[in-house]
Amino acid sequence: MAGEVEKQLESLGWHLPEVGKPQGYVQSVRSGSLLFVSGKFPKENGKLKHLGKIGREVTLEQGEEAARLAALGVLATTKQAVEDLDRVRRVVQVVGYLAIAPGFDAFPVLDAASEVFVKVYGERGKHTRLVVGVAELPQNACLELQAILEVE
Amino acid sequence: MAGEVEKQLESLGWHLPEVGKPQGYVQSVRSGSLLFVSGKFPKENGKLKHLGKIGREVTLEQGEEAARLAALGVLATTKQAVEDLDRVRRVVQVVGYLAIAPGFDAFPVLDAASEVFVKVYGERGKHTRLVVGVAELPQNACLELQAILEVE
Amino acid sequence: MAGEVEKQLESLGWHLPEVGKPQGYVQSVRSGSLLFVSGKFPKENGKLKHLGKIGREVTLEQGEEAARLAALGVLATTKQAVEDLDRVRRVVQVVGYLAIAPGFDAFPVLDAASEVFVKVYGERGKHTRLVVGVAELPQNACLELQAILEVE
Repeated sequence: MAGEVEKQLESLGWHLPEVGKPQGYVQSVRSGSLLFVSGKFPKENGKLKHLGKIGREVTLEQGEEAARLAALGVLATTKQAVEDLDRVRRVVQVVGYLAIAPGFDAFPVLDAASEVFVKVYGERGKHTRLVVGVAELPQNACLELQAILEVE
Repeated sequence: MAGEVEKQLESLGWHLPEVGKPQGYVQSVRSGSLLFVSGKFPKENGKLKHLGKIGREVTLEQGEEAARLAALGVLATTKQAVEDLDRVRRVVQVVGYLAIAPGFDAFPVLDAASEVFVKVYGERGKHTRLVVGVAELPQNACLELQAILEVE
Repeated sequence: MAGEVEKQLESLGWHLPEVGKPQGYVQSVRSGSLLFVSGKFPKENGKLKHLGKIGREVTLEQGEEAARLAALGVLATTKQAVEDLDRVRRVVQVVGYLAIAPGFDAFPVLDAASEVFVKVYGERGKHTRLVVGVAELPQNACLELQAILEVE
């Protein structure tokens, strides 16, 4: 039976992506009540979406969709780790690494990731945040998210 | 009544900046005894100071002031979270993201941030540290700091 | 007497580097059962190895050696902190910052760092991971690693 959080996701029309199985590392590690989540990329149907730099190959709107997809990847990984997304007590930290065309102000796209956590979890979805523009990301992704959550 | 740490700040001539109210995320989250602080920028009187790349628009000396201002931003946010800065048991981790002119060695400016924590907290201000040069920072800031503290 | 983990390191032919003494910050901070480790560079005999950008001055193979050396630096720092490497319960998080020639896919070199943790610790060496390509690193290093471990 789906929990409250998953019903909320469904009502928003958002779907959790499949979680890949990396070689040599893992998607999440729990230590005490903290759940550390590996870097998440914008994926749909198992494929990276919106390749390139935001402001060059990727529009702001596409960057926002990328941020939303990566945030859903954080939730999918969290579900894999704790089984029920209702067990999240707090989204603690979200770090956004953006691949940006030089001088382009792409940073507001991270709001679309923050919005996922807040729409789904309300007050306990309100996280600390940091965003930087990096030179390159794996597989030419336009965005990578890192997250730490507190779980039951 | 101001605690020991704030008296020390005052005697050093350092002032805590105001803490902004971001939309969609928060300035700090406490989980157990760890306080996670959102990315902090060099601000004075509510305005970003020293815009551009260190080694191009921003001198090393200005970069050091930027690092100090961002560190004071970490303390201001911490005070907002735990009310009294004396309740900090340890500065655990500081990450510095610098916007640097290509090939310029701007990294020592982070020492000015470390100095704030050590001058204010002594041994318990000694933190782990990481510094990298990134491609772009929000609003053309020259520096962004991330911090984790252990609090009472 | 060397513990199991150090015997394993020896049998793999890997040596722990010396741990430097930074000014103004420290190599590790323990908070509860989490050990935060400062940024680690690829060092051999106290000197940085493989300077420059991966894909330009540094080959993929050299980048892999750099990743391995930095991972051994994490272990050396951990040993300094908890005395016996057998006291590591879990490698929680590894972040790799790579200096990369524009457009070059250097990211797989981080596998060589992950491999160190998994070969030495097996299942408990399996960590969460994030890798980004940054613009500049201190002293022209090609790679910097950040790590969090859970310790006894």
